[in-house]
Amino acid sequence: MGGHWFTEKQTENFGITIKINRTLHTEQTEFQKLDMVETEEWGNMLLLDGMVMTSQVDEFVYHEMVAHVPLFTHPNPENVLVVGGGDGGVIREIMKHPGVKKATLVDIDGKVIEYSKKYLPEIAGELENERVEVKVGDGFMHIAESNNEYDVIMVDSTEPVGPAVNLFSKGFYAGISKALKEDGIFVAQSDNPWFTPDLIRNVQRDVREIFPITRLYTANIPTYPSGLWTFTLGSKKYDPLEVSEDRFHEIETKYYTKELHKAAFVLPKFVADLIK
Amino acid sequence: MGGHWFTEKQTENFGITIKINRTLHTEQTEFQKLDMVETEEWGNMLLLDGMVMTSQVDEFVYHEMVAHVPLFTHPNPENVLVVGGGDGGVIREIMKHPGVKKATLVDIDGKVIEYSKKYLPEIAGELENERVEVKVGDGFMHIAESNNEYDVIMVDSTEPVGPAVNLFSKGFYAGISKALKEDGIFVAQSDNPWFTPDLIRNVQRDVREIFPITRLYTANIPTYPSGLWTFTLGSKKYDPLEVSEDRFHEIETKYYTKELHKAAFVLPKFVADLIK
Repeated sequence: MGGHWFTEKQTENFGITIKINRTLHTEQTEFQKLDMVETEEWGNMLLLDGMVMTSQVDEFVYHEMVAHVPLFTHPNPENVLVVGGGDGGVIREIMKHPGVKKATLVDIDGKVIEYSKKYLPEIAGELENERVEVKVGDGFMHIAESNNEYDVIMVDSTEPVGPAVNLFSKGFYAGISKALKEDGIFVAQSDNPWFTPDLIRNVQRDVREIFPITRLYTANIPTYPSGLWTFTLGSKKYDPLEVSEDRFHEIETKYYTKELHKAAFVLPKFVADLIK
Repeated sequence: MGGHWFTEKQTENFGITIKINRTLHTEQTEFQKLDMVETEEWGNMLLLDGMVMTSQVDEFVYHEMVAHVPLFTHPNPENVLVVGGGDGGVIREIMKHPGVKKATLVDIDGKVIEYSKKYLPEIAGELENERVEVKVGDGFMHIAESNNEYDVIMVDSTEPVGPAVNLFSKGFYAGISKALKEDGIFVAQSDNPWFTPDLIRNVQRDVREIFPITRLYTANIPTYPSGLWTFTLGSKKYDPLEVSEDRFHEIETKYYTKELHKAAFVLPKFVADLIK
């Protein structure tokens, strides 16, 4: 029962290693291997298929940057969909926007929701908010059945292996476009430029074919491969780089600021070159 | 002689692990443990006292961001000093500025220079440039003996343990101010905000007492702790955020751009809060 070290191989030849005090829960769910562990450095941490999904210490970066960039870009987001994101962190950030009337979360794996509520309460707490509807189901199918419905769609998926593989397909982006209203915005995590440049290039290419405004932005996530994470944003009408100052309202954050909203789109040259 | 895994514990409870094909050189020098290894993911890599210093694959980030931010901030840098940096990477970037007439490198450990030339030739090559003077010696003493001499001083040190401990002291920053001309600029690597927030706070406080313009900027370095590295810049006259567009000239880079020059100073909120 003593501490041990867990290693996530982020590539065949590189990884991170984390001191684990104890395992809180481990289970092969219907869809993936789920481990909830208590770590010394990062607090409680959720692993899916051996990959770090979120931790109590650094979760704010990912969740704030997924949610606030599109929500401040859209002038009046009222109806928001999150695909994946069963830990509830993106929902928590969405709930900081009083104009949002309803947020729907569709995660394929109910166990992620269940154990996040139990072991990551500061992250998952807003899943109980009355403005939130939680559905356990297939996000791909939910998108396929939605038409002209959402102002903003956020895809908070795992890597394109296992249950998330369909969420990195052009057909999925076309479905998202259909599910969005005529001025809708979509954002998806799109991995890192050091180890998966082809993924970023492909996502960008596919999204560009469907959305007139397609942009890439980054954030530092220390428990994710390379520490430099990217997000691909597709928008039908509003440009995240042209948000008017009065659109921003005060929210409590630890990473996002209105200045960073724009600076996050200024890419290192090798990343900008990837998506030329 | 087969491959093995090397782990750098970046904190007591977190680290990175790297597949090593073979050790090219290992030596306890007069000042530190030096290991030059061939890795699968990062090419040849220099370790000092078990910490990753630089690798062939990601070295460009650190070296470009140390050199070009101050060199484009100063309107006419001619005489430049590098303290530490024996691998030669910062010197290589300085040499991309034709206006620089002389660059002096002072590294305390001649073995770092020797083995960088041998195993990291793309990084160290410009140490042979005729505009470069290489001195093996104590950077702290060199600074103490210099007066009103340099336009830009760059401190490319190891962490504040071992031979570099004096390079994170207020007395050193006072010496740097004295060694700089009346419109001089200084930059130093100042570690990461996730694991060493106090170091950043202390460096910022000390530098502010000496330099009227003190700023912090960041870059993503995947082989450094947390992937989010900071640099502290102290300037007597010129503000890096107010560089005129015509100051920038074309140079070949992989990370730095003139847009990133300014965006790199836009800090995540928790980092900005550190140095308030």
